[in-house]
Amino acid sequence: GVLEVECVNLRDYAVNAYGKVDDNPYGGGEGMVLMVEPIDKALGHIRTKTDTHVILLSPRGPRFCQQDARRLAVKPHLTLVCGHYEGVDERVAEHLCDESFSLGDFVLSGGEPAALALVDSLARLQPGFLGNPGSLADESFEQEQYIEYPQYTRPAVYRDWKVPEVLLQGDHRKIAEWRQEQARLAWQRFRGSDSDK
Amino acid sequence: GVLEVECVNLRDYAVNAYGKVDDNPYGGGEGMVLMVEPIDKALGHIRTKTDTHVILLSPRGPRFCQQDARRLAVKPHLTLVCGHYEGVDERVAEHLCDESFSLGDFVLSGGEPAALALVDSLARLQPGFLGNPGSLADESFEQEQYIEYPQYTRPAVYRDWKVPEVLLQGDHRKIAEWRQEQARLAWQRFRGSDSDK
Repeated sequence: GVLEVECVNLRDYAVNAYGKVDDNPYGGGEGMVLMVEPIDKALGHIRTKTDTHVILLSPRGPRFCQQDARRLAVKPHLTLVCGHYEGVDERVAEHLCDESFSLGDFVLSGGEPAALALVDSLARLQPGFLGNPGSLADESFEQEQYIEYPQYTRPAVYRDWKVPEVLLQGDHRKIAEWRQEQARLAWQRFRGSDSDK
Repeated sequence: GVLEVECVNLRDYAVNAYGKVDDNPYGGGEGMVLMVEPIDKALGHIRTKTDTHVILLSPRGPRFCQQDARRLAVKPHLTLVCGHYEGVDERVAEHLCDESFSLGDFVLSGGEPAALALVDSLARLQPGFLGNPGSLADESFEQEQYIEYPQYTRPAVYRDWKVPEVLLQGDHRKIAEWRQEQARLAWQRFRGSDSDK
């Protein structure tokens, strides 16, 4: 009961009786492009039932980030439009969608895996999703950063791999300092990995 | 027959008869941490059958990118380790995995949606995946960039939304120039979206 997902098949809004939803690109090139009309009709049908915020998953969109997840998590209804193969008629992004997102600098066969990741990131921000309701209460930037430091659990020694001493000694101030420093280093590495590429 | 996916249930390698695979974090904190031992045993079992390249999906890893996709697409066997909730014992990343990836600066409830996106990005690089075998032959950086320019298909006018004139006039040099410029602008916007955040 945390969230409800409905799949809409574009072919139900095809431009002919054969279920046609794509066509060759203007200007030439390989592959097929999803047509604007089926998407317009599908969105029109959704909008007869509810107000919705329409998102296109597209390699041309900006990267999705946690700030977007928090902003979108409070919207009562979202529609995720998934492109496929060579793309979606650009008029869909220009005129029919509120915004676009990509997952990053890599190519998917379609928008569906991106939509799934987006849904998951929004789902975990909904009340009732996380097992422990306590962790929801302090949902915040600090808590997002929290998972960036390394975690360890039993046993304290496995093969000859040891848990860092500081975590075993029970000095909460030292543990907090160590974690903060580790999170800072992880964030640096994460940002550094971009400029390498 | 393009690729084969097998799911391994960590609980088959649990540390007790109740299927225990996680425990509280050393040093305190909310949530549970996946233990090193079940993952070590599961990987050990996989390695009795095949050589494998082990990837951890983790918010602590660098961003996955198309360069990684191309590098990994030629490996005969990959194992994707999916964390969940508060994390995975850091010794898994340190000692048991060849590398880690995150999808980006957003939080998932687990590594599974990230693994799915990664599998999709590798699948489309396999011979036989794309409908048109011609488009595989020129798989290249150029072709990756290709999809960054806007695509349009029929009709040339929908409502009062028009396809750019240049695409309708059939001058292939002008079309190529226009597309290159549009791809450059899209790439700028994409990179710009990072520094905004």
